[in-house]
Amino acid sequence: MSKKNAFYAQSGGVTAVINASAAGVIEAAREHGDVIGKVYAGRDGIVGALTEDLIDTSEESAGAIAALRHTPSGAFGSARYKLKGLEESRAQYERLIEVFKAHDIGYFFYNGGGDSADTCLKISQLSEKMGYPIQAIHIPKTMDNDLPHTDCSPGFGSVAKYTAVSIREAGFDLASMCKTSTKVFILEVMGRHAGWTAAAGGLAAEAEGQDPHILLFPEIAFDEDKFLARVEDCVKRYGYCTIVASEGVRNADGEFLSDAGNTDAFGHKQLGGMAPTLAELIQTRLGHKYHYAIADYLMRAARHIASQTDVDQAYAVGRAAVEYAAAGKSGIMVSIVRESDEPYQWSIGEAPLEEVANVEKMMPREFISEDGFHITDAARRYLKPLIAGESYPPYADGLPQYARLKKVAVKKKLKDTFEI
Amino acid sequence: MSKKNAFYAQSGGVTAVINASAAGVIEAAREHGDVIGKVYAGRDGIVGALTEDLIDTSEESAGAIAALRHTPSGAFGSARYKLKGLEESRAQYERLIEVFKAHDIGYFFYNGGGDSADTCLKISQLSEKMGYPIQAIHIPKTMDNDLPHTDCSPGFGSVAKYTAVSIREAGFDLASMCKTSTKVFILEVMGRHAGWTAAAGGLAAEAEGQDPHILLFPEIAFDEDKFLARVEDCVKRYGYCTIVASEGVRNADGEFLSDAGNTDAFGHKQLGGMAPTLAELIQTRLGHKYHYAIADYLMRAARHIASQTDVDQAYAVGRAAVEYAAAGKSGIMVSIVRESDEPYQWSIGEAPLEEVANVEKMMPREFISEDGFHITDAARRYLKPLIAGESYPPYADGLPQYARLKKVAVKKKLKDTFEI
Repeated sequence: MSKKNAFYAQSGGVTAVINASAAGVIEAAREHGDVIGKVYAGRDGIVGALTEDLIDTSEESAGAIAALRHTPSGAFGSARYKLKGLEESRAQYERLIEVFKAHDIGYFFYNGGGDSADTCLKISQLSEKMGYPIQAIHIPKTMDNDLPHTDCSPGFGSVAKYTAVSIREAGFDLASMCKTSTKVFILEVMGRHAGWTAAAGGLAAEAEGQDPHILLFPEIAFDEDKFLARVEDCVKRYGYCTIVASEGVRNADGEFLSDAGNTDAFGHKQLGGMAPTLAELIQTRLGHKYHYAIADYLMRAARHIASQTDVDQAYAVGRAAVEYAAAGKSGIMVSIVRESDEPYQWSIGEAPLEEVANVEKMMPREFISEDGFHITDAARRYLKPLIAGESYPPYADGLPQYARLKKVAVKKKLKDTFEI
Repeated sequence: MSKKNAFYAQSGGVTAVINASAAGVIEAAREHGDVIGKVYAGRDGIVGALTEDLIDTSEESAGAIAALRHTPSGAFGSARYKLKGLEESRAQYERLIEVFKAHDIGYFFYNGGGDSADTCLKISQLSEKMGYPIQAIHIPKTMDNDLPHTDCSPGFGSVAKYTAVSIREAGFDLASMCKTSTKVFILEVMGRHAGWTAAAGGLAAEAEGQDPHILLFPEIAFDEDKFLARVEDCVKRYGYCTIVASEGVRNADGEFLSDAGNTDAFGHKQLGGMAPTLAELIQTRLGHKYHYAIADYLMRAARHIASQTDVDQAYAVGRAAVEYAAAGKSGIMVSIVRESDEPYQWSIGEAPLEEVANVEKMMPREFISEDGFHITDAARRYLKPLIAGESYPPYADGLPQYARLKKVAVKKKLKDTFEI
């Protein structure tokens, strides 16, 4: 196998641990100098490949790369830019191959969710069709935990931990104040189609009456009367009610309860305003004083409370992608394989991209309690190890010290520019 | 001095560290068995005193009391219940004295903000008038940092740290994504009249271009055009714009930009919706994609990222209250005295309650930059030490282990009940 450079890009919404995967890729590649030359990162994800705006990661010190392990966000920039089918987006795919050829790139590491698995698959297919050899390997990342064929998606464990910790803390607050003040608290969490994040909030309730009292999932059609009856029951029973609500909660007709009306580049609706919608309903129908928090990006950026399991797995899948590439593999996603629940043991595996691309893993119905308002023991067994362990970043002057890279640009070799 | 029991109550909105003050009071009282008998805590704050619903803290183990140091919320329950003037609320004050007499209570430790300092003052005045000796000492607490005659208010340092950490993390997220996605992020923080919390967010920006780019204070009249011009300038300059906005931002007429319309028991307006108001404005006028988070209670409950300085000070003021009481003092608030900025050195002092009650400490104008959108070096010197140090709670199974007390009720001695 001749020595080739590698391309690495981050895709879609970033997480608290996607940079740990980047560190895994770059550190492992540096150890494989026999087959891998330089690792070029796409500035702003795949956009950097299309515009030939590559970052030379060899300009970053070993210390800076190691610091990526505790740095949230996408250090090289990520993008919401979806490549469509090979015919529809032919110009983009051909441009990618052109850039890869120009920079002697033989490895394509794409770090993202379902959409990027699809892009990764197409690159690997195109590589065969166009006779330019590229090993394309997908590194899983998504806080939504909706990738199939892996025990979990790196990025999820940390939002899960953030949610469970936050609602436990808010619940203690409510319990203190409910006698004379707020009776209902709603934490709105991200999660468009699957209720994984809301489910994770349920871990904080380890005994009867503990917070959160109610979870609202996109998987369960919202029933206003049933919900309000449950809220009222909690207020009577515990003095207050704590709720974790997924932004993607829908009514029986499948319409989002609240909808900001915007769509992103992938055609996904930008959601928001679930918490105030529920709060308004509770105040109007039940008359209770409420408060709500909207976690939004804070949850996916919260490296300060990242799960150690998540950080370890994110780093491991990054390293493994390079190992698989060095072993000649292509067209696969690196996966996490659960060996046992308790103690949680996991190993690294692989899944063919054909089976991963554009498949959304929904939460199993048996993870949701029969009444639809909480999680089951099966869900607890699955979720519990994913939030285990605290991986604290270093601090100075009270603030976390996150890596700020040099991001030195690779000299362009192509004459043509490309408009994205 | 004859041995008397003590009464301790938590008042107003709870914080991540008010229980550290409770631990300080109870532990110090246990060391002063010569003059202090039992510490009775009011269940749900002063409400517990009025309804003779007292918690016997001697039933809690030393371990449980120590665990309060790392437990957010008000472990005995807090209340938004304001006693008014001595004439207006005569029945309440007389009832308090009656309950104190019945339980041989000679010390009144009230842990709260400006309103509770006022109550504390009135108790000490009433004690003289009614000839029943009570030493009333106020223990400062408020995340709003608006108590006068103290370097800072315990509870503030931790929300300050939460805000600075959160906006730094969200800023890293935005920087990753702004090329193809969100351009503006708004973090709405609590803070009704003073911009201390928003100011603290400014600490995260340690160099030109770092997050947050814009702070919005209640102290500075909101100027729509100036604000939008600044947002646009940041987007041009940095590719995106991060904003920390106080919920209490007002226009030139002094009206809150957004107002949920509810009022609490103290007559304060319940605010909310500042972030969506600003976001809407930005989208309409500038067309940028936005995201926003509303921290709400998450910030004041976030013991997982509490400031070590804050925890230490909260504990110290609790202990000092008992020491002052044992030394025969009354009618004072325990205060924190800044000895030096760097290194930050502080000691414990006292302030007469007449000078504390109902006085709101505003942020000095010289802490806000001339253009009104950020903090000055003077603000940094003041704020920086308050967020220093990380005081992590213990974890099990990925979740913080917060104290859940037994809260054993003291047997009632009075025949009359009291309706609150």
